[in-house]
Amino acid sequence: MSEFIFNLQKTDGQARRGEITTPRGKIQTPAFMPVGTAGTVKAMQTRDVKATGADIILGNTYHLMLRPTAERVARLGGLHHFMQWDGPILTDSGGFQVMSLSKLRKLTEEGVSFQSHIDGSRHMLTPERSIEIQCLLGADIQMQLDECPPFPITEEASRESLELSIRWAKRSKDAFEKLSKPGQALFGIVQGSVFEDQRKRSAEGLMEIGFPGYSVGGLAVGEGQEQMFRVLDFTTPVLPKDRPRYLMGVGKPPDLVGAVERGIDMFDCVMPTRSGRHGQAFTWDGPINIKNAAYVDDGTPLDADLDCPASRDYSKAYINHLFRAGEYLAATLLSWHNLAFYQELMARMRTAIEEDRFAAFAAEFRARYSAGAASEG
Amino acid sequence: MSEFIFNLQKTDGQARRGEITTPRGKIQTPAFMPVGTAGTVKAMQTRDVKATGADIILGNTYHLMLRPTAERVARLGGLHHFMQWDGPILTDSGGFQVMSLSKLRKLTEEGVSFQSHIDGSRHMLTPERSIEIQCLLGADIQMQLDECPPFPITEEASRESLELSIRWAKRSKDAFEKLSKPGQALFGIVQGSVFEDQRKRSAEGLMEIGFPGYSVGGLAVGEGQEQMFRVLDFTTPVLPKDRPRYLMGVGKPPDLVGAVERGIDMFDCVMPTRSGRHGQAFTWDGPINIKNAAYVDDGTPLDADLDCPASRDYSKAYINHLFRAGEYLAATLLSWHNLAFYQELMARMRTAIEEDRFAAFAAEFRARYSAGAASEG
Repeated sequence: MSEFIFNLQKTDGQARRGEITTPRGKIQTPAFMPVGTAGTVKAMQTRDVKATGADIILGNTYHLMLRPTAERVARLGGLHHFMQWDGPILTDSGGFQVMSLSKLRKLTEEGVSFQSHIDGSRHMLTPERSIEIQCLLGADIQMQLDECPPFPITEEASRESLELSIRWAKRSKDAFEKLSKPGQALFGIVQGSVFEDQRKRSAEGLMEIGFPGYSVGGLAVGEGQEQMFRVLDFTTPVLPKDRPRYLMGVGKPPDLVGAVERGIDMFDCVMPTRSGRHGQAFTWDGPINIKNAAYVDDGTPLDADLDCPASRDYSKAYINHLFRAGEYLAATLLSWHNLAFYQELMARMRTAIEEDRFAAFAAEFRARYSAGAASEG
Repeated sequence: MSEFIFNLQKTDGQARRGEITTPRGKIQTPAFMPVGTAGTVKAMQTRDVKATGADIILGNTYHLMLRPTAERVARLGGLHHFMQWDGPILTDSGGFQVMSLSKLRKLTEEGVSFQSHIDGSRHMLTPERSIEIQCLLGADIQMQLDECPPFPITEEASRESLELSIRWAKRSKDAFEKLSKPGQALFGIVQGSVFEDQRKRSAEGLMEIGFPGYSVGGLAVGEGQEQMFRVLDFTTPVLPKDRPRYLMGVGKPPDLVGAVERGIDMFDCVMPTRSGRHGQAFTWDGPINIKNAAYVDDGTPLDADLDCPASRDYSKAYINHLFRAGEYLAATLLSWHNLAFYQELMARMRTAIEEDRFAAFAAEFRARYSAGAASEG
């Protein structure tokens, strides 16, 4: 059965419990997607990523098009085989990383030309080329190329930008219909910064073109949690109920809870792995820095109740030691624990929605998390 | 049953097939012990180390006494629990690393004082203190403190040094008898550089004291394979047949084959993991550098016949990409493959001895390995 299906099973307030079916497997929503930027979830084995409960991971088009190149990945059997991940993969369009990482960018109606941050080579990313790359990689869920404007931005500039992104959405869809395989899906991306009328206009423009899923872009770019939630408050109600909604690049655990509360179904973020590499561990009592002297003699595990070896079997003192000694395993164990924590948070949210107690779950989560975060200082 | 037992099951020429029984499990010999210097086999999970076929790993007393300290490891439940390895662990005495890593060393009859390479703190390592540390760590097989003289060395200086090491062997054994637990074992270390009469004198001095196993030290320090084999040729025949013989810090695959041929039972070396972190993969056709451009498009695995995910499931092109992208997983996969290769080499040697065809195996191994190594350049 080669079809992309979203089945909305249950709502609780705005929060939604659903299931996405792809040819490569099902995705339970709300879902968190670990980020495998360059064909690897950093410091992790795919086997262990899967065991944390991840149904789907993300790959970055920008990184992969530059190295090892999409054509090479295709010749080597596609991204799934290349990195030994047999579940669904979502790729972004490359647009966001072009804006944040590349040099000498030039944006035109046609697309964006830029210089690689790796070797200075020049490249051109158009909606058609982005889809071609994502199809070469073999991504199950693909993203339209959009312009990712800076924050803050004037109303005028944001309006021009979102109209360009709508035109690019159409071109992306046209290219996708030519190049994609059955069961693959292309999502449109809602832009419009923090402006209510613009978010509506963007959503309507995309819905007119028609997509099996809608992403919310341009958030988690420095606007703060309060603004982000305000934007979601007026954006998700405009989106069709029968399509998954993906909030791109978000976020901290309380961001995820607040966004699910506002009707978001999918997330990705480098935070669990990046924080893990830098010594930050997420816990129900807020984040802790495992490198602190407080953990040098702490024989307790990060979370004895998590079904994850990194969380359950190793002491904080051991992980503290690994960081102090500069050992590879430090990054692995803490990334692994953080991914397991994120997946457990998603699982608890899904259960809370199923049991019609999401508001109570969210309140309890926030109270404990922020009290702990405050005491950690 | 808390007893350390060596059961010599079969010989084929000088090569020996045996089994060591410890309270924490059996060790099939000839055995290769991966090195877990600072409480972790670098870039590896213990689960994966075990799955390669390793029966025992090594920890470094010097590193662990400085960080996190032996007392802390003991408070946290011992080295096995600390690093989540439930098989036997062998620790060295710390002497070799004091000589190669520390600063401002001062050697006396009492022991060696030195300054930590990590934080400059001053420490004293005596035979008694080394055993105390190894017992705090909970090592199943421990090493006497010895002096590790430089190479080359004059006959006179080497003779003085080995006599000191024999006196330290006696003090080590006395301390071990007070502090150790049932089933733990202490090995003496044969020194004497490249001098036949001195190796004999060293071995006889140690045998007079009496140990359940004998290490051959002071090799793989720059003397070259030919000299090393020559020393083994006159050293192993002096050692008791019913005790395991451990060649410390060796070596490359052909070194292992040649040493087994000369009656060695146990090895440790950082080579599979250190080489792995630097891009070198061991194969039956010699070592290759996976970072070479030749592998950019090579979709074949490192070794389809090895029962190890790193060897069998990932392409050379993928590992090449991981190294180019500076990803953690690069070091993990190549360390893992190399450890699996080393264990497979040991397994094949054990089988060849069992089947009375070690000489043929060794000849075939060397021919293929050196032909490949030559063509790789």
